[in-house]
Amino acid sequence: MLIEFLNTSMTDLIVQKFGGTSVANLDRIEKIAEIIKSSAEINNVVVVISAMAGETDRLFSLGQKYFNQDNIREMDALLSTGEVVSSSLLAMCLSSLGLKAKSFNASQLKLMTKKDSSNKFATILSIDTALIKNEIAHGVIPIITGFQGVDEKGDFTTLGRGGSDTTAVAVAAELKAKECQIYTDVKGVFSADPNKVNDARVLEYVTSEEMLELSGQGAKVLALRSVELGHKYKVPIKVLSSFEQSQGTKIIYNEPTDMEQSVVTSITSEPNQAKFTIYGGKSGNDFSSSVLNLMAQKNIFVDVIVMNYELNGAIDFSFTVQQGNSVEVESILKENKGQLFDDYISESDLSKISVVGVGMRSQTGVASRVFSCLEGSKTSLKLVSTSEIKITLVLESSLEKTTVESLHREFFK
Amino acid sequence: MLIEFLNTSMTDLIVQKFGGTSVANLDRIEKIAEIIKSSAEINNVVVVISAMAGETDRLFSLGQKYFNQDNIREMDALLSTGEVVSSSLLAMCLSSLGLKAKSFNASQLKLMTKKDSSNKFATILSIDTALIKNEIAHGVIPIITGFQGVDEKGDFTTLGRGGSDTTAVAVAAELKAKECQIYTDVKGVFSADPNKVNDARVLEYVTSEEMLELSGQGAKVLALRSVELGHKYKVPIKVLSSFEQSQGTKIIYNEPTDMEQSVVTSITSEPNQAKFTIYGGKSGNDFSSSVLNLMAQKNIFVDVIVMNYELNGAIDFSFTVQQGNSVEVESILKENKGQLFDDYISESDLSKISVVGVGMRSQTGVASRVFSCLEGSKTSLKLVSTSEIKITLVLESSLEKTTVESLHREFFK
Repeated sequence: MLIEFLNTSMTDLIVQKFGGTSVANLDRIEKIAEIIKSSAEINNVVVVISAMAGETDRLFSLGQKYFNQDNIREMDALLSTGEVVSSSLLAMCLSSLGLKAKSFNASQLKLMTKKDSSNKFATILSIDTALIKNEIAHGVIPIITGFQGVDEKGDFTTLGRGGSDTTAVAVAAELKAKECQIYTDVKGVFSADPNKVNDARVLEYVTSEEMLELSGQGAKVLALRSVELGHKYKVPIKVLSSFEQSQGTKIIYNEPTDMEQSVVTSITSEPNQAKFTIYGGKSGNDFSSSVLNLMAQKNIFVDVIVMNYELNGAIDFSFTVQQGNSVEVESILKENKGQLFDDYISESDLSKISVVGVGMRSQTGVASRVFSCLEGSKTSLKLVSTSEIKITLVLESSLEKTTVESLHREFFK
Repeated sequence: MLIEFLNTSMTDLIVQKFGGTSVANLDRIEKIAEIIKSSAEINNVVVVISAMAGETDRLFSLGQKYFNQDNIREMDALLSTGEVVSSSLLAMCLSSLGLKAKSFNASQLKLMTKKDSSNKFATILSIDTALIKNEIAHGVIPIITGFQGVDEKGDFTTLGRGGSDTTAVAVAAELKAKECQIYTDVKGVFSADPNKVNDARVLEYVTSEEMLELSGQGAKVLALRSVELGHKYKVPIKVLSSFEQSQGTKIIYNEPTDMEQSVVTSITSEPNQAKFTIYGGKSGNDFSSSVLNLMAQKNIFVDVIVMNYELNGAIDFSFTVQQGNSVEVESILKENKGQLFDDYISESDLSKISVVGVGMRSQTGVASRVFSCLEGSKTSLKLVSTSEIKITLVLESSLEKTTVESLHREFFK
């Protein structure tokens, strides 16, 4: 009977992940214990948990002074204590409510990882699900420390920021869970930032492709890597709030057949962007990849990239970066001016607005509807970039608010 | 060559243990890193470390709200993070000084433990020394988390307060280390409390038997359990300060042959004692063990016990407790008066003074020299208890200071 149970995929199992603000203090831990208790009355539940809000930063700042390439092993051991604290507190809290619960760190769980080439962040190789299934079979709610793993030597590793999301999705994938619920401090994925657009509403679902675009566009609800992982293993993910009642947003893996679905799913915006345009590149593609290489060496993330061949064969090459990187980019370009290219110009105080939706793939005229919202501000447009499911505009920050509102009206009226 | 090394006992190895105040902050961690660095130039070093001062209390108070018999496993997991933080920080600090160092928690070290009958505190069964020896053979300084162990299921356990001392002595015993250095915030074991007696001096050595008596008499420099363990395995222990230069005090296992050695090693004193005397016990030994049982059930530590059969067959039964327990003791005695015994009286504001030394075993007249120091205060003496190497006096607290000074003059002039 038990063996049979251990071999089946767990069709009645849900994985619930709670982030740092959801376990910020004992009051919050008690709130999520109630959520877990309710869920456990209907389903088998496995919990994945982050460190208490601010704890990972506190631990990192303690070790920062001595941090170097040689002691990443120790920094990982240090950081991994954050999730041990929150998971054992939650297990104790659940036990005080009369439930059986046990915390498991990555070592106990044999959550095996491999370091990436930078030796800093690890990716998950495998998880010992037999242990989790055995605990569930004995009526125990396993509380798993997020963000951490171990390597083949038994040394702790960490999965990088947002790593607990990745842990949760990986656990759900391995256990073939019915659903992976990511509890956050927002109600779900919105059609636009509710702080900027009054009518913004929680979306019932977004496709995983849209979520990938949105995660990359400043929507902080779900870490990019966990969406990629969910996409790969088709994990049914739902994003919802641990602070207030909400339906949440499902991540789906097939395009909706619902005809009423808007062609556009969400509109995101990000201020504090800077744009650089380079003229007279010296050696075709080589020159642009050389410039991008120089940026990568300094860990500068280059965001939107646009390249255009002029009639006369010259190359216009534009890209955007976070405004905070402007000074460094400027100094790199100054150093290479005259060798790789003739000259460059920079612009700052820009915003990036993205219109995302799988619907636009099958519908023409989305671009023209987008441009219709730019009435009277078209001259301020600095850059346009498009993909199959996204149109990105870069324009003066002063126009961000009205443009986002206008786009939201156009596609969500 | 390596195999040969791994099989030898480590005659050039020292174990260094640093307590919570020695790792209270990064400045302190850097200070002890310098101590370790100096030692590592001469010897192979294994380090055992406590949590940063106050951290174990902080963690305990977080979990206290939910703490019960069912979730001791989780409380242990929670508390064990304290030593992981300090050990990884120290390893990083040593690495920043150019040394090779690695932290190991109890699970990585396979420091196997067994719970006691209360299921609360664990005792050490074994330690995987192969791993430590292997690291040393590769030039690495192992930093071991004190206070924690694991059980056969891989669950974390804790060794109780002062547990890091126990870890250090156990590691030293297993590795057959040349010396186990316990770094504290005092210069060593004193002939008397230097805050009370001006002439008090650091003792070069005390016997383990004396140390056992002293640990039980309020000398907080070394946890009682670690002295017992050191005594059992004859571990060469030295107590010294991580705050200032000092020779420290050695714990030795044979009586010194040095003729100059004083018959008395140390004089300790503790205020805030209360004494209870019970009259007319009902059934001989049964009555006194019944009373002691009642105290034990309420977790009241009964200290000095004196029992005397009167000529008429009646029994005088006196004992002391910490004054903080007086109210509770009083209520227990009130409840049982008339059943177990006829009546009782209580006295408070007392001090306990102990004169300890293996020398008194072979020398007569120590008691008379002790009593000669009580000139003029003899009428205030409340209780006297003696063992082979100890004389304990209980008297009014107002006489504590002058009596200790007088005893110190008598035996250390």
